[in-house]
Amino acid sequence: MLPGIGVFGTGNVVKVIVPFLREKGFKIEAIWGRTLNAAEEVAKELEIPFHTNRIDDVLLRKDVDLIFIICSPNLHAQIAVKALGIGKHVLCDKPAGLCQGEALKMVRASQYYPSLISIVNHSLRFLPAFGQMRRAIVDGYLGQESEITVCDVRVQMGSLLHDAYDWLCDDTMGGGVLTLVGSHVIDLVSHLTSQRAVRVHGVIRTFTKTTDHVNGIRHISSPDFCTFQMEMSGGALVTATLNNHLPGTFSQEVLICGQAGHLMVRGGDLYGRKSNSAKEDVIYLDVEDLQRGGAINSTAASTIPRPYMKGLFKMIGALREAFLPVEDKRGWVKEPVALAATFEDGLYVQAVIDALKKSNSNREWVKVNVITEEPDPDPLLSAAVRRSAISM
Amino acid sequence: MLPGIGVFGTGNVVKVIVPFLREKGFKIEAIWGRTLNAAEEVAKELEIPFHTNRIDDVLLRKDVDLIFIICSPNLHAQIAVKALGIGKHVLCDKPAGLCQGEALKMVRASQYYPSLISIVNHSLRFLPAFGQMRRAIVDGYLGQESEITVCDVRVQMGSLLHDAYDWLCDDTMGGGVLTLVGSHVIDLVSHLTSQRAVRVHGVIRTFTKTTDHVNGIRHISSPDFCTFQMEMSGGALVTATLNNHLPGTFSQEVLICGQAGHLMVRGGDLYGRKSNSAKEDVIYLDVEDLQRGGAINSTAASTIPRPYMKGLFKMIGALREAFLPVEDKRGWVKEPVALAATFEDGLYVQAVIDALKKSNSNREWVKVNVITEEPDPDPLLSAAVRRSAISM
Repeated sequence: MLPGIGVFGTGNVVKVIVPFLREKGFKIEAIWGRTLNAAEEVAKELEIPFHTNRIDDVLLRKDVDLIFIICSPNLHAQIAVKALGIGKHVLCDKPAGLCQGEALKMVRASQYYPSLISIVNHSLRFLPAFGQMRRAIVDGYLGQESEITVCDVRVQMGSLLHDAYDWLCDDTMGGGVLTLVGSHVIDLVSHLTSQRAVRVHGVIRTFTKTTDHVNGIRHISSPDFCTFQMEMSGGALVTATLNNHLPGTFSQEVLICGQAGHLMVRGGDLYGRKSNSAKEDVIYLDVEDLQRGGAINSTAASTIPRPYMKGLFKMIGALREAFLPVEDKRGWVKEPVALAATFEDGLYVQAVIDALKKSNSNREWVKVNVITEEPDPDPLLSAAVRRSAISM
Repeated sequence: MLPGIGVFGTGNVVKVIVPFLREKGFKIEAIWGRTLNAAEEVAKELEIPFHTNRIDDVLLRKDVDLIFIICSPNLHAQIAVKALGIGKHVLCDKPAGLCQGEALKMVRASQYYPSLISIVNHSLRFLPAFGQMRRAIVDGYLGQESEITVCDVRVQMGSLLHDAYDWLCDDTMGGGVLTLVGSHVIDLVSHLTSQRAVRVHGVIRTFTKTTDHVNGIRHISSPDFCTFQMEMSGGALVTATLNNHLPGTFSQEVLICGQAGHLMVRGGDLYGRKSNSAKEDVIYLDVEDLQRGGAINSTAASTIPRPYMKGLFKMIGALREAFLPVEDKRGWVKEPVALAATFEDGLYVQAVIDALKKSNSNREWVKVNVITEEPDPDPLLSAAVRRSAISM
């Protein structure tokens, strides 16, 4: 049987996901919003039977077995850890949290409850074009995997901000193009190349600090542009440029070059060319229509770039399969979502984001350091305690 | 009357330029090649009456008044300086030289003979799409010029190398994507934005060190990939990715974003979108045919990317106008080529290239320092001389 779902968040993506979850047979039991008003409004619009602004009121419901965390990143870790602790499956939006410390807590919780499903919403992994790209790489289209030379990613789009001031404007709450788009890119590149970033260099900028709607005492601190380079464990060099200064546009290109050829995903289509070939191969064209059944609010849908939405829908399809296994009687299996990003992947992505932020501040290359111990919240105090212990 | 031309170099671009110069009414009097054989072969193919492998034999000819330097960069400075010194006009291929010291010598020579035409072949300035882009920026399409936020350049193409080993394989002779393509990008961005690079960061790589034809004791040292960032004097941030790993392809995109909109040149076409507009403007479509008269060897033409070739042809058209002024009786005027890159521009580009190389070596941001004094060729010796002068 499909689990009942509790949703955290009231943004546009929720309005896209809920109808699609229902179409796939999931039941939405409860929704949480930052304010009671916001929760009530969306609950009404989407006809969700229960709404609240208290986290526990969703988590503790008996009819809720799967948690969708699609709110601001500063709340991801606390909700995810608590949900796993009381035996609920979790799908958490990217990035995992605000910093590695939070992401590590989530990893620990997922390791403690390994039978529960815990995945990060890096939906591009489920976009068919990237599935095909991954397969082509594994099959040697670019040569040996160790012969991947360059990976070049470019995302050009409009502003990520809403009209009103909210967490998207705030760097410290996880807003901005690096956390919201860059996290996808960092995960995707690792997924495709089977390599992880060793050293990174980044430039992160907030060019637009005020808008017609946000121009009072609060300014925008979340970045609207970033460009970064990553030296990968297998020798590949990644360069990515993410740009929020093209209103009304969405264009995403992922190019991977190897000694034997190159592969390029544009939008949802995959092209390739072997070095010794005289012409480009059209490997996969994405002609499948997203809007079947008309279930999706098209206004909301237009606010989320198509490849991301489509990947998300495919991931929800996989999630359905995970809960409707044909032979297994336990109620769920993990295989259908084996492709999904784990909380460990989320921790790695967070480590790269942390390194990029440090690189930007210090204007230098920074080694990526995935933590395995929670950072000491107060190193000075700890040192003092140790000293007093010694002197006693 | 149009001046007689002496050409230095025997590469493919020569085979494209010579027929076009003739079509414009110029007479090619002499050609120089690195070897007598190479010179003879091209002289025969292009029906040039005189060929040599001695530089002076071209420069000193009375029927030669305009020098086209299209050979390896390590020879640019010495030929250009000598040519100006004996009263000949010079068009010099990019980059100006191998280092700032060489470029500075060229600047000095051009300042000493200001009435002579001395230009660097940064031909993209003459491509109509960039002319239109520059005009749109000046007319405020992006807002104030000081409101330019991001400039993003991407060039994707195949290898720059020939089958046989030559200077293109050699970093120290000026080969590679940074000097040959990057120099254009550095010049173009300054030309378009009226801003110069203040600080730069670059990653420069040679992924392909051997080919089927170059695999003996000599390896390829010239870079086939680079990505760089430039902080500009007016606050803009430039990011550029130049990639030689897409055989059989040529794609060039130059995007400039401002607070009021963005402009994008793709190939030879210009698109734009104002921030408050619901649709993209097609500002300029390049439909003009290059191959008129059939004068151009199409095999050779295919070896040079179309925007570069077209810009070069427009520049040669401007050069013709410079030598055929209607009212001025001196024989030439500089106005028609006022758009061209000067040797001072060449020195600036060289300063940025030097800074990018240093950035790549030291893995750090480097301040761009345009020299005004020739660097001391042997600082240790000079210090010893100063010490002995003091002790005497």
